[in-house]
Amino acid sequence: MKSFAVRGGYIVKGPKDVVRDSYVIVEGTAIREITPQLPEGITEVLGGPDDIVMPGLVNTHTHAAMTLFRGYADDLPLMTWLQDYIFPAEARFVDKEFVYLGTLLAAWEMTRSGTTAFCDGYFFEDQVGRAAKEVGIRAWLGEGILQFPSPSLQDPARTIEHSRKFIGRWLDDPLVRPTVFPHAVYTCSTELLQQAYALAEEFDLVFQIHLSETAAEVEQIREKFGMTPVRLLESLGCLSGRTLAAHCVHLDDEEIALLARTGVSVAHNAESNMKLASGIAPVPAMIAAGVNVTVGTDGCASNNNLDMISELSTVAKLHKVSTMDPTALDDCTALALATENAARALKFMGGRIEPGRPADIITLDGRAPNLVPIYNPVSHVVYAANGSNVRDVVINGRIVVKDFTSLTVDEEALVRECRKIRKRIAGD
Amino acid sequence: MKSFAVRGGYIVKGPKDVVRDSYVIVEGTAIREITPQLPEGITEVLGGPDDIVMPGLVNTHTHAAMTLFRGYADDLPLMTWLQDYIFPAEARFVDKEFVYLGTLLAAWEMTRSGTTAFCDGYFFEDQVGRAAKEVGIRAWLGEGILQFPSPSLQDPARTIEHSRKFIGRWLDDPLVRPTVFPHAVYTCSTELLQQAYALAEEFDLVFQIHLSETAAEVEQIREKFGMTPVRLLESLGCLSGRTLAAHCVHLDDEEIALLARTGVSVAHNAESNMKLASGIAPVPAMIAAGVNVTVGTDGCASNNNLDMISELSTVAKLHKVSTMDPTALDDCTALALATENAARALKFMGGRIEPGRPADIITLDGRAPNLVPIYNPVSHVVYAANGSNVRDVVINGRIVVKDFTSLTVDEEALVRECRKIRKRIAGD
Repeated sequence: MKSFAVRGGYIVKGPKDVVRDSYVIVEGTAIREITPQLPEGITEVLGGPDDIVMPGLVNTHTHAAMTLFRGYADDLPLMTWLQDYIFPAEARFVDKEFVYLGTLLAAWEMTRSGTTAFCDGYFFEDQVGRAAKEVGIRAWLGEGILQFPSPSLQDPARTIEHSRKFIGRWLDDPLVRPTVFPHAVYTCSTELLQQAYALAEEFDLVFQIHLSETAAEVEQIREKFGMTPVRLLESLGCLSGRTLAAHCVHLDDEEIALLARTGVSVAHNAESNMKLASGIAPVPAMIAAGVNVTVGTDGCASNNNLDMISELSTVAKLHKVSTMDPTALDDCTALALATENAARALKFMGGRIEPGRPADIITLDGRAPNLVPIYNPVSHVVYAANGSNVRDVVINGRIVVKDFTSLTVDEEALVRECRKIRKRIAGD
Repeated sequence: MKSFAVRGGYIVKGPKDVVRDSYVIVEGTAIREITPQLPEGITEVLGGPDDIVMPGLVNTHTHAAMTLFRGYADDLPLMTWLQDYIFPAEARFVDKEFVYLGTLLAAWEMTRSGTTAFCDGYFFEDQVGRAAKEVGIRAWLGEGILQFPSPSLQDPARTIEHSRKFIGRWLDDPLVRPTVFPHAVYTCSTELLQQAYALAEEFDLVFQIHLSETAAEVEQIREKFGMTPVRLLESLGCLSGRTLAAHCVHLDDEEIALLARTGVSVAHNAESNMKLASGIAPVPAMIAAGVNVTVGTDGCASNNNLDMISELSTVAKLHKVSTMDPTALDDCTALALATENAARALKFMGGRIEPGRPADIITLDGRAPNLVPIYNPVSHVVYAANGSNVRDVVINGRIVVKDFTSLTVDEEALVRECRKIRKRIAGD
């Protein structure tokens, strides 16, 4: 089996486990060993003696295809943004081709900025899977379940059947895993939520949902059901170790304890929550209570990039100032959110650089102006770096990005096609 | 006189003034014209048909040489960080060579990430000027005035004289402007503050000072003087259009009105204030009151990079969530902070792309994965880009960075020297 090496001055095996001046040896789809000497017979070497080698980053909540709406509408009140811009644009422009192309763009951006796996929820998710496989990025995908017509399904009565068929098509893929994705408690009936959860149980899949993102959502559910969204989901039996809840901005202490007790994972979306003024999720309190917190970028209509390194930087700083405690959410804790914790949420063996684990590895250019000098590589990843510092990316043993260049994307052609769609949407 | 062109698909002359598909013509140190056709006789063209061309960014508060402490100490309580790490390291390692080398590193990072001017306060500022001129970046520099011994001056009784001599050496430089920089109200006696202000008036210079950065500072000054730091400075006659106050996190409404009325400019340092858990400055309220707000990164010991584009992104998002208003601090307002407002604070004719203005111009790669497609270039600068997207940099008519490569820094040699200092500091 063909092998290659990834070399670094710092191998960040995990947040608190860094070794110096070594080679990570990849064989097939897995990591074979970490060794200070380049083994004989290996001729291909990524990275270099100054670089930081680390696990690929995992984005646990996004809507990849929305890259094509990047910068289309900003700085608006939430309802104006959604109802006057995003929903009409989705109704008019989101089709199979849009989702395929938007996800190619997203997968290009994600791989080029060090993300090796993402968890997505949108429409026409078969096209997301197609684009992910083409670019070579690992993906957990969910077809949006709604009680209303959606761009990919006119008849909401068929939404569960629609998801079931989607799941069937992807169950055996080595890179793409299906999930079940009811959009939110305010867009799905309680019956739909329970049917969705049963579907996730039937196939042993991740159950992802937007949860308690805004104060208005919590108020609306409280008025309708006499309880909060989290408690509603609990009453429906939808909270467990398979639940991946995005946002979770508005929680009380009891709800935090409930999420911890039931083993729910949370996808925290700091930048999107800031930009839309949804609020600041109680992340340090969740971590202290034992909730498995992870990080997502959300879609590019509300963030507006998919840069997980910049997102981590924001996460680490935001919770220091929100708690007025400079020791809150330190560099190692922040890095764990986007690696080990994300792997746990997705029941995935990655998230660390260790023999036997999947070879999802990235390198950061240790000679970039913003990364010189290096005292602590984990601090640099969290506080000094950005996604453009990523030099090489390996996913499932495949070299996807080498020396800042994508090996799996025809960049020229992709940019040209994205511009055509932009022209159509902007109408200029 | 030799001329060249900077080409872009979007010329952001100012935040609300964008023209498409044009060339900015540079002649000598100034912008000659903006034209849709490349004039005859011009053979050198930077940028390209997809790029965003805009004014260089101005960092109004930093301590450049502290790049050499980047990632040296993070996630600590403020006083532990300062007293157990930063102050001892400064006392032991900060000398002329450290400041020269650290500023070369900073100027390399700043220019490579689109900053064309910075306002600095530290020690051995002649070395900062020397490095700035070598790299070709515009700089406003202040030798730290303290009532205690400093790394560059053992005898505090000579601190004003020390600054006066520094000013004399730089008064006629085309790229470097001296300023007067009393460190803060809690490290300078009232006499020293008044002498410093008189010195700034004498030479018609910017008077920069750290102000109301932490709650502890406000409390300490209130206990000692019976008034807040802002009111103390007012009582000493130190607030005017020449005052550039860094941080201003802890202000009441009357103080905000006072800063507006006296014409003070504020250097807002969002990321440093978040990381050190100092608090969130009332930026939207300051802007509403008419204060001239600008943006700084602070030094790399507390941020940990000098990336003004990432900083702007944080500024724009932080104040939306802090006010729970998604329309607060929109993209155009954010960009103005780091261009037009900064130029106003520094009494500088730059900050816009217009004929006759100084040629301080940057281009962003419009084909970067995180910047495709483009609906609104200002949104992209503020919400989607990072400093590594900067392709070309022109300062005072000189091409400093071309196609992601520094033309004024020996990058190899600089990295090697920085590593030597790191080794000495880390002791490994």
